[in-house]
This record gives sequence, C-alpha cells and structure tokens, in this order.
Amino acid sequence: MNNVKTIGILGGGQLGRMLSVAASRLGLKTHIFEPSANPPAGHVADVVTTASYDDEGALKAFAASVDVITFEFENIPTSALDLLESVRPIHPPRAALATSQDRLTEKNFLQDLGLQTAPFADVQNADDLAQAIETIGTPAILKTRQMGYDGKGQARIMSPADADTALADMAGASSILEGFVTFSHEVSVIGARSADGAISCFDPGENVHVNGILRTTTVPAKLTPSQRTDAVLIAARILNALDYVGVMGLELFVTPQGLIVNEIAPRVHNSGHWTQNGCAIDQFEQHIRAVAGWPLGDGSRHSDVTMENLIGDDMDKLPELAKTDAAIHLYGKTDVKAGRKMGHVNHVKKSA
Amino acid sequence: MNNVKTIGILGGGQLGRMLSVAASRLGLKTHIFEPSANPPAGHVADVVTTASYDDEGALKAFAASVDVITFEFENIPTSALDLLESVRPIHPPRAALATSQDRLTEKNFLQDLGLQTAPFADVQNADDLAQAIETIGTPAILKTRQMGYDGKGQARIMSPADADTALADMAGASSILEGFVTFSHEVSVIGARSADGAISCFDPGENVHVNGILRTTTVPAKLTPSQRTDAVLIAARILNALDYVGVMGLELFVTPQGLIVNEIAPRVHNSGHWTQNGCAIDQFEQHIRAVAGWPLGDGSRHSDVTMENLIGDDMDKLPELAKTDAAIHLYGKTDVKAGRKMGHVNHVKKSA
Repeated sequence: MNNVKTIGILGGGQLGRMLSVAASRLGLKTHIFEPSANPPAGHVADVVTTASYDDEGALKAFAASVDVITFEFENIPTSALDLLESVRPIHPPRAALATSQDRLTEKNFLQDLGLQTAPFADVQNADDLAQAIETIGTPAILKTRQMGYDGKGQARIMSPADADTALADMAGASSILEGFVTFSHEVSVIGARSADGAISCFDPGENVHVNGILRTTTVPAKLTPSQRTDAVLIAARILNALDYVGVMGLELFVTPQGLIVNEIAPRVHNSGHWTQNGCAIDQFEQHIRAVAGWPLGDGSRHSDVTMENLIGDDMDKLPELAKTDAAIHLYGKTDVKAGRKMGHVNHVKKSA
Repeated sequence: MNNVKTIGILGGGQLGRMLSVAASRLGLKTHIFEPSANPPAGHVADVVTTASYDDEGALKAFAASVDVITFEFENIPTSALDLLESVRPIHPPRAALATSQDRLTEKNFLQDLGLQTAPFADVQNADDLAQAIETIGTPAILKTRQMGYDGKGQARIMSPADADTALADMAGASSILEGFVTFSHEVSVIGARSADGAISCFDPGENVHVNGILRTTTVPAKLTPSQRTDAVLIAARILNALDYVGVMGLELFVTPQGLIVNEIAPRVHNSGHWTQNGCAIDQFEQHIRAVAGWPLGDGSRHSDVTMENLIGDDMDKLPELAKTDAAIHLYGKTDVKAGRKMGHVNHVKKSA
C-alpha cells in the first residue's frame, strides 16, 4: 500500500487497545509507549515500551522503531512531543493538541472560526473571577485550563458566594469561567480527515452523561436535517482549520439558537465506540487509515446502536449481559475501580 | 465472568490472529504456540512461543500459562495433543480433530449419523483403487486420507487409465477415492456449540472455489427454506454427536437429492469471514466465547455480504480496494507468494 508498516501509539489505555486491533485489520503493527505497566493496549500490540515521557532514550528508540506516531490522549508533555516529532511525523497535528490541551486556547480558536461556544472568561485570580461572574452570570462553571477530563478539575458556581471555594478547588491552576448553556441534549460528531484533505464524518450520536462521565451514546441522534448538516459543517471547518489528519471527537450542545461547540478531542472518542457495531469501518480504523496515509473508509451507518459504558461495578452485570444480544467490548483491565471505564456494550437495534 | 483469562492457541496464522482480536473484545489475553518465526497472530497476541510440536518443555510451559487451549488448524501431532491435554482442557474436543484429520474416518462418521456424503472407498494399493474405480466409476478423485487442504494431496481420475499416475501422486500415503457429486453449488454452515450444549449457526454462505482455493463466499446463499433448515439440522447433528465446544465449518453440496456433506473443519473457517462485517458477533468471537465458557453471542445477520479472498498477487489490487467501501482484513504477512492467502475483503451490500 505505502511504506507505513508500524504505527507508534502514545498511551496504552482502551483507546490504544482498539486502535491496535484496527491497525491489525490493515496488516499494520503497533508499538505502544506507556509509562504504566501492563497496559490494556499491550495485550494486542506487537511491541510495548514501558517508560516515562521524560526518558529521552526510550522516546528516541520508540520513534525510530515506527513509521508514524499518534496518540490516544491529549496531555502529552510538550518536551516529549518535540523530541518525537524530530524523528517521525505525528498525526493528528501538534496544533490540534495545543488547541485542545488548553480550554482558553480552544474557546478562542472556535470563536475565531465563527463558531458558537459557551460564554467564557480567562480567570487568573479572584479579581478576574469576580469580574467574570459579573459578566457571565451564574450558574457558571470554573474549570482548569489544562488537564481536566471526565468532570475532574471543575467547580460549579451557583452564586457569587461560591467563588472563593471554586477558586481554591483549582489549586492555583490557570482557569476559565464558562457560562451555563441551556441545551436540550448533547451530540457528538466523530470526524475524520485524511492526509489528502478528504473528510468523512460518522452520523452524530446523542450522549447522556452521569456525574460528568459518558453513560450512553445513541445513533441516530435527535436532530433536524439542518442541524445534522450544521454538525458536519462545523466538524469540517475545524478539521480544515487545523489541517487535521486523523479522527476527532466534537461535542455539540443542541439549543434553539443552533449548535454550540462544547469540546474538541483530537483523538478517537468514547462517544464514537458505537461505530464498532454500526458501520463497516469504525472510528478506530478510520483514524489508523488517516494516520497511515490510506484513503478513508466507508463510515456509513448500517444499524441503529446504543452504546453503554461499563463503569466500575457495572462489570457485575457482565454475566447477564453476556446472555443477551449485546456486543461486548472489554478493556482487559485487571482491577475494577469506582468510575473506571472497564468496557462498553453496543446494543444493535434489529430492523423490524 | 469466569476464571478463564488467557486462551492458548495452537497455530499463529490468520485464523489465530483474528481469534486473538476477538478474545481481546472479551477482555481475554491469548498465547500463541507456533513453530515458525514472526507469525501473523503474534502481532496481536499477548505472548508468542516459537517452538516445535515435539518440544515437550515448551508445550508444558505453554499449557501451564493458559487456562484453556484451542487451535486454528487440524494437523496437530497427536503426541503434542496428549501432552497438552494432560495439563489443560482442549476445545474443540479431540474426537472432532480425529474425525476431521482423516477423510476416511470423517466419511464413516458422517454415514453413521445418517448424513449423505459422496460415494467413497478406502484405497491402500493399486488393487483397492481398481476395485474402487469399478464401484464408484469415473470421474472420481483420489485424496490422501490426511494432511490435505486447499486442493493439495489430490489427483483427479477421469478414466481408469489415470489410476497409476494418481496413486503415484499420493506418494504411498493412505488414500480414499471419492466419487464426483453433481451439485449446483456449495454452501458453508458455520456452527457454534457452547459448553452447556447450546447451538447457534450463522446463515449459510455460498462458496465459489477457483483452483481448489476458496475465492468468494456470499450471504445469503441460494437455498430454499427447507434446504436452509436442513443445513442447520445437519450442523447441529454433527456438533452434538461430537459433544463439540467451539466453532465448526461445514461444507455442503446442494443437489436435487438434498444436501451432501463435503467436509468438516473443527475450527473457524475461511467461509465464515463474512461474519466480521455481517453480524454483531463474528465467528471468531463465537469460537472464543464457547472455548472460554461464555454463552454464545448474537450471530444473526444484519447485512448481506460477499467475502472475497486476497490471494497472492491480488494484493496488487489493494490501493484501488482501499478507495472503495470494502471492509479490508489483512493478515500482516511479509511475503506475497502465489496461492498464499494474504487477506480478504468484505463487500457489505447497502440496503436500498
């Protein structure tokens, strides 16, 4: 096909695991770089390097052993990326990482593209916060600019009196105040862009979160035809602006005033797991195709699906789930912990 | 779920590779035992042992490291199986292997079950062959009782004059003469049986062979409703008779006189590869579920599919195929050789 034979993946969690499996379908090998021992992706990867992101020797050897590098999470130290990129190309591009790693940069980027976001303000200190609360109003939510996910690094401000506690929760980290958006529901677009600029988006999925963690994604999402078109156009505008190569997750709030961009994830995304049982080519293969320089595949949806995450003790339901017609996807994690994503199931809707 | 965490797989080819991927979906690890270096299954397995089937130490260590043992090909030396089975259970059962490893045993087994086969006769020498040709007639086909696959170890006898050459082709191996069956087409049933005796069969697929090698399988197959029922009943009768656990491939000739059993393969089968893109649970996962003591999953068909093998130079078509909506499955084999199965593609038929 081309000269890409081995994909290097930064991060050895479930996303890296499912990327490895997708790579194998295209005859490609994967090499996982992961600081923790016994990573889920290691069970299905050709090679695993266990080393930290400041181990320059390990990073160099890893990069030299692969043809192209990708990642399954955003918070990779810049120094590691600099070193890796001096040896091999990294997809998606650094610009996408820089944008999504910082909520303020991300919001400014989206606004510059003419897209709607929640109202927001930069918060460096108590004065900034007081000013921001006055402008944006309450309820609002204070978030660290970096490193937050699944509801961590966030504090709700229901009235100005909550400001001090919320700021203390940030522990000195640079933060951003976001106004609440009144939305009917949240949808995700999983979009892919290949090296030659072709774009393919999976059908939008409708997300339900519980305690800040994704619980279910259902396709098709409740959207009007024009909302559906808007969702894809927004994804395409972002992908093109970033000269993106790979799969991107895009969370959108559905409101009477149109679609409001909540968040960009420059990687395969939990809300795209339904594609494994709803499409011939899933989000993981679409990402590998883009990163490896292949044409994008057929991401059209053949079935309606509800994806349900298995979190922590949800694993107790496994013996019963195994008896149903659900498609089960487990991550091979040894220890069940509260809030830990252990797997997911795809409930495929039968045609009548 | 239960105590099975690691599946040992004898054989590291493409079937072992796709079994490893399926195991990963259920959170299970695989350990591949394979004499050749760099086996396709090794790229996606947790552990690979490179050793020969007469290396008792390697066999014992392999068996001790896994919870249950299965295989991706039939011709495993009996001595190795004896040793392995003294340490860990083997599924499918030895009886299935013994039956399918020997064409004569297989034919007798099928006949004893009241199933139709091609006419056949045991051939030990030239006299046997002359007698067999007289009884069965020509054209007929002389096959080694053991070790033949994909058209190897076979010689056609168009008239009695071909007898000597055909027998010489067998190189002294015990053989069986099979009469030709006049059939309109060949279908496969991929059947699964779980440890608790539940049976689930995938929809029959219609096979096209070229030069003795499977070229395409298409679902649905051309079958009347009663033929479809018969196909499943035949598979069930065989699975139950063998107290089978796992997935079995069953090739049937469709004739005006009913379905005639051509061959049993006690493993996942090339003619079942369409299930990867036609069903929520494919043949590989169904096999792993059975072997690991899970309930069988939902093998119902959501889409019509034509599976096309990529053999040898077919790989030259890959750049064009990658641009289509075909689902590609490559085996990661380094060298392209004539007649070598390099991968397959599933063409999923879109609903109108």
